[in-house]
Amino acid sequence: MDAKHALTAAELAQRLGLELRGDPAIALHGVGSLAAAGPGELAFLSSARYRGELAATRAGAVLLRGEDAAGYPGTALVAGDPYAAYARAAALFHPRRVAAPGIHPSAVVHADAEVDPAAEVGPLTSIGARSRVAAGAIVGPGCVIGEDCAVGRDCELVARVTLVARVLLGARVRIHPGAVLGADGFGLAMDAGRWINVPQLGGVRVGDDCEIGANTTIDRGAIEDTVLEEDVRLDNLIQIAHNVHVGAHTAMAGCVGIAGSARIGRYCMLAGAAGVAGHLEICDHVVVTAMSMVSQSIREPGEYSSGISVMRSRDWRRSAARLRQLDGLARRVIALERERE
Amino acid sequence: MDAKHALTAAELAQRLGLELRGDPAIALHGVGSLAAAGPGELAFLSSARYRGELAATRAGAVLLRGEDAAGYPGTALVAGDPYAAYARAAALFHPRRVAAPGIHPSAVVHADAEVDPAAEVGPLTSIGARSRVAAGAIVGPGCVIGEDCAVGRDCELVARVTLVARVLLGARVRIHPGAVLGADGFGLAMDAGRWINVPQLGGVRVGDDCEIGANTTIDRGAIEDTVLEEDVRLDNLIQIAHNVHVGAHTAMAGCVGIAGSARIGRYCMLAGAAGVAGHLEICDHVVVTAMSMVSQSIREPGEYSSGISVMRSRDWRRSAARLRQLDGLARRVIALERERE
Amino acid sequence: MDAKHALTAAELAQRLGLELRGDPAIALHGVGSLAAAGPGELAFLSSARYRGELAATRAGAVLLRGEDAAGYPGTALVAGDPYAAYARAAALFHPRRVAAPGIHPSAVVHADAEVDPAAEVGPLTSIGARSRVAAGAIVGPGCVIGEDCAVGRDCELVARVTLVARVLLGARVRIHPGAVLGADGFGLAMDAGRWINVPQLGGVRVGDDCEIGANTTIDRGAIEDTVLEEDVRLDNLIQIAHNVHVGAHTAMAGCVGIAGSARIGRYCMLAGAAGVAGHLEICDHVVVTAMSMVSQSIREPGEYSSGISVMRSRDWRRSAARLRQLDGLARRVIALERERE
Repeated sequence: MDAKHALTAAELAQRLGLELRGDPAIALHGVGSLAAAGPGELAFLSSARYRGELAATRAGAVLLRGEDAAGYPGTALVAGDPYAAYARAAALFHPRRVAAPGIHPSAVVHADAEVDPAAEVGPLTSIGARSRVAAGAIVGPGCVIGEDCAVGRDCELVARVTLVARVLLGARVRIHPGAVLGADGFGLAMDAGRWINVPQLGGVRVGDDCEIGANTTIDRGAIEDTVLEEDVRLDNLIQIAHNVHVGAHTAMAGCVGIAGSARIGRYCMLAGAAGVAGHLEICDHVVVTAMSMVSQSIREPGEYSSGISVMRSRDWRRSAARLRQLDGLARRVIALERERE
Repeated sequence: MDAKHALTAAELAQRLGLELRGDPAIALHGVGSLAAAGPGELAFLSSARYRGELAATRAGAVLLRGEDAAGYPGTALVAGDPYAAYARAAALFHPRRVAAPGIHPSAVVHADAEVDPAAEVGPLTSIGARSRVAAGAIVGPGCVIGEDCAVGRDCELVARVTLVARVLLGARVRIHPGAVLGADGFGLAMDAGRWINVPQLGGVRVGDDCEIGANTTIDRGAIEDTVLEEDVRLDNLIQIAHNVHVGAHTAMAGCVGIAGSARIGRYCMLAGAAGVAGHLEICDHVVVTAMSMVSQSIREPGEYSSGISVMRSRDWRRSAARLRQLDGLARRVIALERERE
Repeated sequence: MDAKHALTAAELAQRLGLELRGDPAIALHGVGSLAAAGPGELAFLSSARYRGELAATRAGAVLLRGEDAAGYPGTALVAGDPYAAYARAAALFHPRRVAAPGIHPSAVVHADAEVDPAAEVGPLTSIGARSRVAAGAIVGPGCVIGEDCAVGRDCELVARVTLVARVLLGARVRIHPGAVLGADGFGLAMDAGRWINVPQLGGVRVGDDCEIGANTTIDRGAIEDTVLEEDVRLDNLIQIAHNVHVGAHTAMAGCVGIAGSARIGRYCMLAGAAGVAGHLEICDHVVVTAMSMVSQSIREPGEYSSGISVMRSRDWRRSAARLRQLDGLARRVIALERERE
């Protein structure tokens, strides 16, 4: 894919701090996959799965590990972690969009809001009372920023993001379309046969460099705030309930749900559609695999699972029926063991 | 957290109908947690989990049960259900927002729509033909109301809510950002190797006092309506398919999915990410725990589950592998039992 | 439900190519259920579940199979697949909305965008640079179309749809409110203890006649495109990650999640809340039942499951506890078998 910046292989190696083998003068203007990259593009080999594509690649240069570079006749950039090096290289060719300062005439900004002159506010966006948008920030088209919110330096609200109330974003936070931060937490009390609402008085605090996916929801706290520390990465369609606390550098894949007041550690990874119950703690460096449910605190780092992979339905139905009778089966085995004695 | 209303402990006890112990003149201007409340704030003790925080609290007054009040030297309001009492107290300090009547000049209201002069329509909202907004209702910024919809008295559509078509809201319904009511149900028929759409001709009817969370979707019915009775409470990212009927006072936590034509009773509670199959019935007073799947009708009140909690992945992989062979294992136990005879 | 078109039973039979029994002159102006349809309405009987309602129906005419028509004294249209015939009949009475050409004055269209004069652009919608909207297309209220997108002929973006960047829609694609196509894929690399973003340079390509549900998200590809072939049908709240490829005529129910680079075949059906792991393949004609997880490639057509249905919680807790010890139980059975020998 074409990009606006072109670099020679030598310049790229120098910018990334990598060893270069092959032709230093090759001009590169973008990135591509091993299978599809052309002579002006940089590809990468990170997983053994794609090693077979290396011999046939037409890429101008390839990022790879030392052991893979050994037999490769083309121009190579040798990296300990080719995927991270690729990410940095691709960002050189395709830098993040920079704010085009100014407020679109169709935007509606409350008289008591403060938008820095170096911020960009897109068309058909509204900003409420006492909210602030810092320099370098982009608030894209169709966003709704409510009252008492803050958008930090160089944030990007791509489009149609909602910050409801009392949402404070650090610097360089990116939020994708449809995300809703700061909606009322789901706080209810049953009173004489009817639900009554518990006012949700806290806010949401999001640390520097966080990323929040499309249609993800993060509710504001009941009394104190819901908190994401720095560099938390959330994919699409994730639910973060009120008073949740997520530690720095933790990543969650799509469709994860975290119930109220759960406290998740740093450097955790939750795979797709994992669920975490409320009022529990997960320590640092925990991995939860896909479609697994955490219903008690986890106090030791490591990988945890409860997801079950499919089998033929007719076979599965038998297993599932037996599972429902499993306590009885276990008792029968105990009885057999006792008889034997 | 500061609020606009201040009350003495005596006034509060009277308003809530509770017994007061301690200083009736203490001025309270808001609520807080036991751990964080200051001398002008009201806290509550509802769960034994937090009893340890009572001794150290700096709260001006505390809502608690009689047995907890016995040893407490500070000002206490004694309640049978301290959490419900807290909810009512917090609502006194932080009353719901009242409509600021008028239509923002950036809103687009169809000539055939009717907006009551005592309703509020926020910026950048559009309202379609033959739709009505009643007195006291708030339609916040960025909403889209399509054709033939009705927003009842004192409803609040917080922001960026979509009512697609034929959505009728009762009184005091609250809907959070990103929710979509009245989209086409997912009705398809296979015809000569291609899908054809079944026109979705029904609407959505939502009873008084319902609440609908952020990014939740409720489709309109195929022929008749999708129905929520009164006081139904839905959290975020919930899917309610066409023709579903949800009984009064039922609550669902985040990420629940209900398939088409399911009929859920009154006073049910569905925990996070529970799923309900289509064309079945769940009676009143049923609780479904998190990540559980209901695939047959439930005819007796009580609590139902099928979710599995995580264990270490290496241990789980062994259990899961055995689960796939469980029918065989059960047969082997039967063989052992037979031999013994 | 009333519709704008009226037809006699004879005209309808002719338009649908069906055999008519009974009164050819009956005037029909809409459709309804067996239970609720009136004398001017057409009902259908497709499932044995509703056969009991046939005797009592007041419908003017009924679509049904030959064997059901035999004993029915009213006007009948005989169809091999009454549900598909109903879908076609209902579409005759309730045809899809046709574009009302023109751009609403509140819409914001970039100078470098191209909107065909025969397309409709609704209020408070924005369209970015280098995007195109073809003839007959409807872009409803509150949509955001970013840069380098294409909306094909006769598409309908109902309302508040977001196309972020490089999203190409074929003809007759329908997208429901809150859907987000073309957001950045969730591509991250860990580098010196912090996440860095992998630029997402691909787009999204959506084939003719696809349908995409409310609040569904489809990310754009990392290098190449995320692809939906023709006639793919997605319900609400579905997550399609970057580089996924979905074959023609495949349908997915609500809350399904597909992880990155998965390749799903043609004519597949994924039931509600099913999950598919990344970098795997599912062949054509595969059915995955509700809340099931696919974590390895599927190479043979058929139905696959791993979802578990609820039971009473107290009974389930015993089964679930035994499940966690299942490997041990299996070893004990093996020990018993060995002793016996």
